This record gives sequence, C-alpha cells and structure tokens, in this order.
Amino acid sequence: MQVPPTHYPSRMTGSNSSGTASYRRLDVARRRAQLIRAALGLFAHRAPEDVSLDDVAVAAEVSRPLVYRYFPGGKTQLYEAALGSAVAELTQCFAVPEEGPLTRRLAGALDRYLAFVDEHDAGFSALLRSGSVVATSRTGAIVDEVRRSAAGHILAHLRVPEPGVRLRMAVRTWITAVEGASLTWLDEGKQPAVEELRDWLVDHFVALLLATAARDAQTARVAAAALALEPADGAVASLARRTVALLTEAEHLLPAP
Amino acid sequence: MQVPPTHYPSRMTGSNSSGTASYRRLDVARRRAQLIRAALGLFAHRAPEDVSLDDVAVAAEVSRPLVYRYFPGGKTQLYEAALGSAVAELTQCFAVPEEGPLTRRLAGALDRYLAFVDEHDAGFSALLRSGSVVATSRTGAIVDEVRRSAAGHILAHLRVPEPGVRLRMAVRTWITAVEGASLTWLDEGKQPAVEELRDWLVDHFVALLLATAARDAQTARVAAAALALEPADGAVASLARRTVALLTEAEHLLPAP
Repeated sequence: MQVPPTHYPSRMTGSNSSGTASYRRLDVARRRAQLIRAALGLFAHRAPEDVSLDDVAVAAEVSRPLVYRYFPGGKTQLYEAALGSAVAELTQCFAVPEEGPLTRRLAGALDRYLAFVDEHDAGFSALLRSGSVVATSRTGAIVDEVRRSAAGHILAHLRVPEPGVRLRMAVRTWITAVEGASLTWLDEGKQPAVEELRDWLVDHFVALLLATAARDAQTARVAAAALALEPADGAVASLARRTVALLTEAEHLLPAP
Repeated sequence: MQVPPTHYPSRMTGSNSSGTASYRRLDVARRRAQLIRAALGLFAHRAPEDVSLDDVAVAAEVSRPLVYRYFPGGKTQLYEAALGSAVAELTQCFAVPEEGPLTRRLAGALDRYLAFVDEHDAGFSALLRSGSVVATSRTGAIVDEVRRSAAGHILAHLRVPEPGVRLRMAVRTWITAVEGASLTWLDEGKQPAVEELRDWLVDHFVALLLATAARDAQTARVAAAALALEPADGAVASLARRTVALLTEAEHLLPAP
C-alpha cells in the first residue's frame, strides 16, 4: 500500500471535490470537532440566526460542500451539534472533587462556568434569552438538563441524597440567579471583574443557604456541616464578620452580646 | 331618533351576523376586555399554542366571527393583547407606596406578583420558558421591560437615583431569582405555601443586599438606611438572629463577642 502524497492530484480536478481532498488526513471526529469549534467561535460574537454555513466554511477554512457533508441537516444540525458540545463543557463545570471547603469548590466551578460565559458571550445570551430565534423547545430542554445536572452536583456536594422542597428550591434558585447575573454581567460590558463576580456569587450562595436554613431544619443541618469545613480566614468568615458588623450598626435588630 | 329594540331583528337573519347583534350593547372596550379575560383564563391552564380562537369564543360565550372581528390578526394578536394586559398587571405589582419598612413593601409587592403567578400558572410558565412556542423576540422584549420596571421600582424604594453596577446587579439578580423560584414553585405543585415562599423571597432579598453590602460602599449605605427602618420584631431581626445563631455554632467563623 502506497502512502498518499501530501498534495493530492484530486485538488487539481473536478470542482465538486476541489479543496476537500487535502483534509482527508483529518479523521471524521477531528473534522467534526473543527467545524463545531469554528461555529462556536462565530456564535460567540453573533446571534446564531446571523451565522450561515458559508461563514462556518470560511472560518474553518474549508469548502461549503464539506460543511454540508458533515452536517447534511444544515444550519440546524450544526447548531445543535455546537450546542451539544457547549452543554458537555457546561455540564463538566460543576463536576469538581468533593473535598475541601464548599465555597472553594463552588469558586472552582464558577471559574469554569464564567470562563465559558466570557468566551461564548453573545452565543450564551442568545441561547438563554427567551424568544431568541435560536431558542427552540429542544434547546430549552437541553438547557434545562444542564440546570438539573448542576443542581444534582451541588446537592451531592452538600451530601443530601433526599433534599426537601426548600433546599431544592434554594439550589435551583441560586442556579437561576447565576444565569441571570451572567447575562447582566455581559450587558454591563463584563463589569465588575470576573473574579469579583465569582466571589459575589459564592457569597450569594452562602447568604441564600443561611437564609433558607433559618426556616428549614434540613437546610440548617446541611449549612452547619458546610460551615464547619470553612477556614477561619476564608470567604464565609469574612462575609460573616462584615454582615454582623452591618447588622450591629442597626443595633435594635441584634440582641446585645 | 328611535331607541333600538332590545332584541335585534338581525339575530333572525343571515348566518354571518348571527349571534353577534345581541352583543352590540357592550361597548368595544368592554368586549375586548371580556375576550382578553377569557383568553387569559385559557392560557392559565394550557400552553398558548394549544389555545384556538374557537376555544376563546366558547369560553367567552360569543361567536367565532366576533372574536375575529376584534382580533383580525387572529391568535397572535389576541395573544399579544392578553400579554399586554398581563404585563400591565405585573408592572403594577412593584408600585407600592414608598413608606414603612422595606421588607413590608417587598412582601406587599410579592403578594401581588405571586397571586398573578398562582392565577396564570401554565400561561406564566409558557411565557417565561425559553423556547416555548409563545416566547417570541417580541414577548421576550415585553418581559424584559417588566423586569426593568420592577428593578426601577426597587431602586426607587432604596432611594438610589444613580445605582452603581454592583447594586444594579444585585437587584436584577434578585428579580431573576424571584422568577426562577416562581417557576420552581409551580413545578413543585405550589409547595411550600405561598406565604412561606413570599417570606423566603423577602429574606433572600435581605441576604443578597447584605452580602453585596459587604463588598460595595454604596450598597452598604443603602442597606444601613433600610435596616434602620426595620422593626425589632420584624422579618429582618428574626433572620439576623437565626443566622447569627447558625454562624456562632461554627465558632471559628465569628470572633468571640
């Protein structure tokens, strides 16, 4: 068997296959991934309805027929594949090791999530904004699956196999809040800095967990276990001290020590 | 000029106008409102794409041609009119008097908001779920306008004419959280009771405001002013005491008094 030459003769013949032969060295999976990456790059700065297969071909430096060969369903199929790839990445965000203080794990997960938001930008907005052309009932279901997965991860970190309605609601509400804050952050031209946003979202989680714990015995147990793991010089200790200082100023609200 | 008889002769003639004459006594605005009310009643329990003009005619006890006469644009026009009516109601929720403790005002606003969610149920979900058939870019823009209006009202209650990015983000994030919690509440079969949900959402606001205050001087000033108005036996005092008790159990997090 002969090793194929670097320059394929077919490059010189037939307009249909022109430009495609030199790509044969890339296997199907890699080629698919390359096209998806190119599409995601475009979706990041333009609403998906403004991205054509031609644009993807140009961005990936391949012919339009090649894009069609890999995605015979056209734009919709490419978009769904890109979505699937994005979802796989998002779903991994909250899969952090179950060790160390909870706030450190959350910060790690948020670092990955916010890097995704930062990178995909307009594409992220278009996906989540109700009524955007790209948001179909299918994409809606896929995004819901990401939310469910994130909630499952967080409840696993909290070591709650059977969460009650109040704890479930707290976790799901925080996830919605993270999405909302991410969209606002994009609207605000990515202000404040991403590290501050991350720390604020962690504080938000702690604040919401404690507010829920004040009404629900299960959440109180979970919160106590989580607090026990937090270091004395960590985020929760700092938040606790600053909040108690604020409450103490309004001295009628807290009993004298 | 002769007063028209109560029973119109036209009821007996011509199939096109049959059944419509007796409705002439209702003026246009009242008739329109009646049809919108009937439509909202249907949207409350079925996704709008499953509601036909026939259904609206049956629910309002009028003829189908009458529904078309008022809404010649068909289903879309009726849906948008119903949406406009719902939005007018939602926008009024946060227009509560600027007096008394902030948490009492928020609770009042949430009572109205949650009554709307409770009443419109499936219609509320369909409107907010990204990718639902009824969510178009136009409805998306309308819903965004409600969010903006709610944020404006809350910032007015906080007496902040020029909110910085952190305070804006806290308020907008809480509004997203309220929406998310409302959808979860519907998913959970309206558990817990609506009064508990309302109080929890108020606690959530306070917790988020304090967590933000810990990082932002403007929010700290706003929070201090708001705390000063809260009664010693109110929601904030109770939340503060229960939270400090939880934090004190993890004694390494709070300095000894």
